[in-house]
Amino acid sequence: MQTGMRIVRKENYDPKELNLNETLFSNANGYIGIRGTLEEGVPDGFPTMRGQYLAGAYEIIPMKQAESLCNLVEKKQTMLNICDTQTIRLTIDGEEFMPAKGGNIRAERILDMEAGYTERTTHWKSPSGKEIRVSVKRMAHFMVKELFTIEYSIEALNFSGEAVIDSCHTAQVANFSDSEDPRLADESPCYLKTVEQGFWKGTSYSVTRAENSGMTIAAATDHIVISEGRSDSMVREEGGCLITRLRIPVRKNSTVTVLKYAAFSDSVREKDPKAKVMQVLSDAMHEDISGLYERQKEYLSRFFERSKMMIEGDDELEEAVRFNMYQLLAAAPCDSHSGIAAKGLTGEGYEGHYFWDTEMYIVPFFTLTDPALARNILSFRYATLDKARSNAKLVGHKKGALYPWRTITGVECSGYFPSGTAAYHINGAISYAVNLYYLATGDDGFMKEMGLEMLIETARLWLDTGVYDRKGRFLIHEVTGPDEYTCMVSNNYYTNACAKYNLETAAGLYERFSSEPEVAALAARLSLSDSEIAEMKAAAEHMYLPYDEEYGINPQDDSFLDKPVWDISKTPKEDFPLLLHYHPLHLYRYQVCKQADTVLAHFLFPSLQSKETMEKSFRYYEKITTHDSSLSTCVFSMTASMLGLKEEALSYFGDSAKLDLMNRHENTKDGVHTANMGGCYMAIVNGFAGLRITSAGLSVDPFVPKGLSSYSFPFTYRGRQLKLSAGTDGAELELISGDDLAVTFRGDEYTVTKEKPWTYRQ
Amino acid sequence: MQTGMRIVRKENYDPKELNLNETLFSNANGYIGIRGTLEEGVPDGFPTMRGQYLAGAYEIIPMKQAESLCNLVEKKQTMLNICDTQTIRLTIDGEEFMPAKGGNIRAERILDMEAGYTERTTHWKSPSGKEIRVSVKRMAHFMVKELFTIEYSIEALNFSGEAVIDSCHTAQVANFSDSEDPRLADESPCYLKTVEQGFWKGTSYSVTRAENSGMTIAAATDHIVISEGRSDSMVREEGGCLITRLRIPVRKNSTVTVLKYAAFSDSVREKDPKAKVMQVLSDAMHEDISGLYERQKEYLSRFFERSKMMIEGDDELEEAVRFNMYQLLAAAPCDSHSGIAAKGLTGEGYEGHYFWDTEMYIVPFFTLTDPALARNILSFRYATLDKARSNAKLVGHKKGALYPWRTITGVECSGYFPSGTAAYHINGAISYAVNLYYLATGDDGFMKEMGLEMLIETARLWLDTGVYDRKGRFLIHEVTGPDEYTCMVSNNYYTNACAKYNLETAAGLYERFSSEPEVAALAARLSLSDSEIAEMKAAAEHMYLPYDEEYGINPQDDSFLDKPVWDISKTPKEDFPLLLHYHPLHLYRYQVCKQADTVLAHFLFPSLQSKETMEKSFRYYEKITTHDSSLSTCVFSMTASMLGLKEEALSYFGDSAKLDLMNRHENTKDGVHTANMGGCYMAIVNGFAGLRITSAGLSVDPFVPKGLSSYSFPFTYRGRQLKLSAGTDGAELELISGDDLAVTFRGDEYTVTKEKPWTYRQ
Repeated sequence: MQTGMRIVRKENYDPKELNLNETLFSNANGYIGIRGTLEEGVPDGFPTMRGQYLAGAYEIIPMKQAESLCNLVEKKQTMLNICDTQTIRLTIDGEEFMPAKGGNIRAERILDMEAGYTERTTHWKSPSGKEIRVSVKRMAHFMVKELFTIEYSIEALNFSGEAVIDSCHTAQVANFSDSEDPRLADESPCYLKTVEQGFWKGTSYSVTRAENSGMTIAAATDHIVISEGRSDSMVREEGGCLITRLRIPVRKNSTVTVLKYAAFSDSVREKDPKAKVMQVLSDAMHEDISGLYERQKEYLSRFFERSKMMIEGDDELEEAVRFNMYQLLAAAPCDSHSGIAAKGLTGEGYEGHYFWDTEMYIVPFFTLTDPALARNILSFRYATLDKARSNAKLVGHKKGALYPWRTITGVECSGYFPSGTAAYHINGAISYAVNLYYLATGDDGFMKEMGLEMLIETARLWLDTGVYDRKGRFLIHEVTGPDEYTCMVSNNYYTNACAKYNLETAAGLYERFSSEPEVAALAARLSLSDSEIAEMKAAAEHMYLPYDEEYGINPQDDSFLDKPVWDISKTPKEDFPLLLHYHPLHLYRYQVCKQADTVLAHFLFPSLQSKETMEKSFRYYEKITTHDSSLSTCVFSMTASMLGLKEEALSYFGDSAKLDLMNRHENTKDGVHTANMGGCYMAIVNGFAGLRITSAGLSVDPFVPKGLSSYSFPFTYRGRQLKLSAGTDGAELELISGDDLAVTFRGDEYTVTKEKPWTYRQ
Repeated sequence: MQTGMRIVRKENYDPKELNLNETLFSNANGYIGIRGTLEEGVPDGFPTMRGQYLAGAYEIIPMKQAESLCNLVEKKQTMLNICDTQTIRLTIDGEEFMPAKGGNIRAERILDMEAGYTERTTHWKSPSGKEIRVSVKRMAHFMVKELFTIEYSIEALNFSGEAVIDSCHTAQVANFSDSEDPRLADESPCYLKTVEQGFWKGTSYSVTRAENSGMTIAAATDHIVISEGRSDSMVREEGGCLITRLRIPVRKNSTVTVLKYAAFSDSVREKDPKAKVMQVLSDAMHEDISGLYERQKEYLSRFFERSKMMIEGDDELEEAVRFNMYQLLAAAPCDSHSGIAAKGLTGEGYEGHYFWDTEMYIVPFFTLTDPALARNILSFRYATLDKARSNAKLVGHKKGALYPWRTITGVECSGYFPSGTAAYHINGAISYAVNLYYLATGDDGFMKEMGLEMLIETARLWLDTGVYDRKGRFLIHEVTGPDEYTCMVSNNYYTNACAKYNLETAAGLYERFSSEPEVAALAARLSLSDSEIAEMKAAAEHMYLPYDEEYGINPQDDSFLDKPVWDISKTPKEDFPLLLHYHPLHLYRYQVCKQADTVLAHFLFPSLQSKETMEKSFRYYEKITTHDSSLSTCVFSMTASMLGLKEEALSYFGDSAKLDLMNRHENTKDGVHTANMGGCYMAIVNGFAGLRITSAGLSVDPFVPKGLSSYSFPFTYRGRQLKLSAGTDGAELELISGDDLAVTFRGDEYTVTKEKPWTYRQ
């Protein structure tokens, strides 16, 4: 076991921590996500979010507007909490084991990131004095995406007797809700209705259906008992629940184990989801469990070989970073039927919606560690391009595609369009990610098949949105940037910079590929003319990027600097995040930022401004940013790195890295913050290590912030494996596999070969 | 009968026109409003909005936000459709008289504005050939506010037989809804629940209660039959309905009449509403009906003596203008418990909410014709000042009052705050009306008791909202002007001009009254200091009023002129009003106006700009204004008059005057447009006649637009009665009663005495 690959936390069964542990010790594999809830259940009133999710599983529900305006969204998709197959109720000689009720001598939770499972171990003493050690090992399998296993072991410590287990499979469950928090759904209905359920040769199965989306989910469970004595098994249906009762003799100082296998499938991916789950279950139960564990480990070993981050000098940081990378893998879609939700598959925060940050914060991570997963994410956007075109039409555009601000299926789910649909910069994020993936992989097939069409259609939207003013500048009105504390403004610097990049990239790549027959066909299909390409180039060239002479900074938008500055230092601590304590209209009237906005633009497009402008801007925005969004500190870290503000780079990085593992925003209970996890990776790789991928190729410019002694990470670039290491005395870039590579360091080009890494000593 | 005091329309019982006639021939007296629905009912599926309303009667209902942001409004008030006491079902020898089913030989409707009743007369032939003439005269009594009467007469034309009448009183009725139109409520529940109902000595009574508001409504009905033969009467309760059955012999060529009296009261105004309605009914039935008609006529005669508009040269216009004035009177609140709803008491459009336009468009009318009613309207605002203070706090203000954009009780009901609560100019409208009323009446008591406190609290809000920029200009960010096709902008010219006036007026009047003990006490209570008054003056002085050098106009807001111009001429006719056909975000990106905005500011505050700037602005905005709002053309008319654009003044005036009577916006079915009716009056009085009331006194500058030959109107000013007459050859201002008066005409002052009017010959 390598250090830093296990997250260990004492389990106190404290109701205050339960929800948090449910998130931190959830099991997910990009398809299934199951929160770390207690198999045994909890007493009534205990806060728990008993969630099992499938990527992309959704229902459509009404979202009435308080005031109905033309073409506003009045329906939304919401993620489904699917059937509960986790429940295992244990009684020992008639005494119920429910650790949340007390009786625990010692308990802990582990997430083993090399082995790919979680484990909860509880040493418990019954009211009558019987002591047991229960260990629950759970795994969502990365190679058998439909499979989830629970290895439930009971060791009798001071007695012999009988364990009775009721293992349940409940088809109809309710979604979680919290009417106090706008970031969560505020209704808690049961969206999935049972179509059929029962037992077949001891295997429980259920088929449920969401009425409006028509999505069907199938699940099945079965058990293997490993014990010395003879156990018996009986099934029954009670109160809609499928129950398998296992009676198992337990002997002092010996362990009995129940292996509970559960399989899930859905009608989007399978024609006959029920047949699929029966097959998966049967296959899994024929394979020895140790084989399944082995394959899980192999998968992760390959992943970490390509990605493992080593950080010397701060073990906590290293652990937190790896935790983040593991959670990203667990959230990564295994096909083009889903994206990455704000909370991954670990909770119902933001209703399972995908936002712009998947592309801007997470795609860079997968591009460098597992490009096939990055391609999955972008394929999902391509699969929903037609819906983005419809969305653009709905808002009044004559051409182009406007990706939805929040969605599961590709259809807009924004209830408040001023800080939803109006955030056109999502088009920028997607086009940025498309090009980044392309530059890092050279995947021409992707570009011709999917990427270019997305680039052109998103670029068209800017043409249709913007307008030349009397001075010949190309302006973009009534959009909302990443910072939602300002809304529907003119010339948001970030948005305009993204639009410029989008327009340039679309035009440039189109011209590069235009002689290829499939691209010519695409142009014909899209009625794309050379004059439209020329319009794109002209709009990019004349794009207005606001600059304030007096302050020497880029204002966030046209009116931003005219507003009064919000005094963050005088704001009571309990008033953060501001969005929960101030009317939006009030926030809009101040210079106060929820998150990086112009600062992110500077990081992404540094060539647009002088270092001085960017540094002044950084200092300016630093003072007025609350970091109420989890997307903020990682960006401040990256930009600080870029500007050589090393101390700030580390400090912001720490906030970002530990956000979930240390529950810094106090809302990790609702699920992890996937985008920040990606941002945390970027803060090291693109920030500290200065790794950049542009049309000019790969460049690096590493430094080690004070407080750390070194770091290193492998990564993938254009079919090659490389590894970058940096210490306080210098840095090295090794070519592990693949062809020789030119790399740029501070303007000079070096060739890296397997024999000769690039090195830098200071 | 004077000409032009009767509105006569053929009644075809055409379903397409029914709803329109219900509005045009509704009966209201400022307290009760009853739509001109058919007593006999209509066949199933016939479009009808069977509405009976009481001023200020409301229920509180949930208004969930699609996305819940901090402090957004999540409940709203909605007007109540109270119990139905109109229904009268008639059968003649067993044949049902339901004119909407056919059999009509001739029918017409009349609104008699001198007599204050409506009348519907139908010559009908039954399937078996019996002919009757049914005449239904309805009156909502201006002097007995709780009383509504129906005089239902049946003349047998070619037979003798028996009339059987079922006269109903239904306590629980549903509100009207139309889920397709955002300006109407989209749910249709029954808000009032019956508390008790029954008969007492032949009188039906009901008490109903709205659960959330706690408002109780009582109603009672009774009948007097006038016939030669002996009639009998029987009461019963059936399906929740209180039915009085009257059997009346009818003789050929003679008429029988049923007088149905209904009384209404509510728990806001009366401790025991039930006792009140029984008393009102008893009193009314003891008075001969002719006495009630007489008193109604007297009331109206007094009103028209003070207000009657004479227009020579266009009878249609004259009729339309009088209709508008009559409807305003019918909508005028009789106390401080209600305001004037967008649709008065004639329909459920806008859910019975009161908006800014009451003060800006209607108070000027009452100020000059019936100042006590203007005071009622302003008293309502004073009564809800504390709620406006709370509203300001909710939005984040530390001081001041922000009146709600739409309300019944004074609590904000805006579902979409960007074009609701953000329309801070409502504070400007209220402060403008307070000062106008004061200048026109010299009502010091009002100013000290109510006006000044409203002026100070509204002015404070501007201080708390605005901010000085680096150039020392006072800016106001993130507000929405009258034109809702642009939203949450910086420095809306109209808003800034209103704010300037509000600040100046508050400071000026405070200083004038500060030595009075009650005002000193007020200042102490409000913690108002001289330095705050100085701040108000400074903010007013430095108020930024955007001006564009190149165009020589005042831009509607900071970013307005940078946006592309919407081509109205190329927009398909069926796309108007634009708000029903384009996503708001799309509209916000264009130079296109729903209604007068800067043009209204120029009319109200002409001294702020040169005539040239105002004229250029008028021409500019004229091209980009759709007049989708009913508040628009009247303002364009006034401003055109002010600028000497006589032809435009008349043309816009015609659109405004005939809006409801000619159903120009095709939505009069939902109720009349009260604010436009006031605006239409202003277009003559303040527009054509150039009548202005400022702190300098009264000024006039009349002209007669081509197409009219003359007009005249009496009005009230500072306790005097005056009359202005204008013809093509000159004009005259007569003093009818009261002291001599100085009046200004084009900068020169004249003294008008009873003996010596001001005259002007051209």
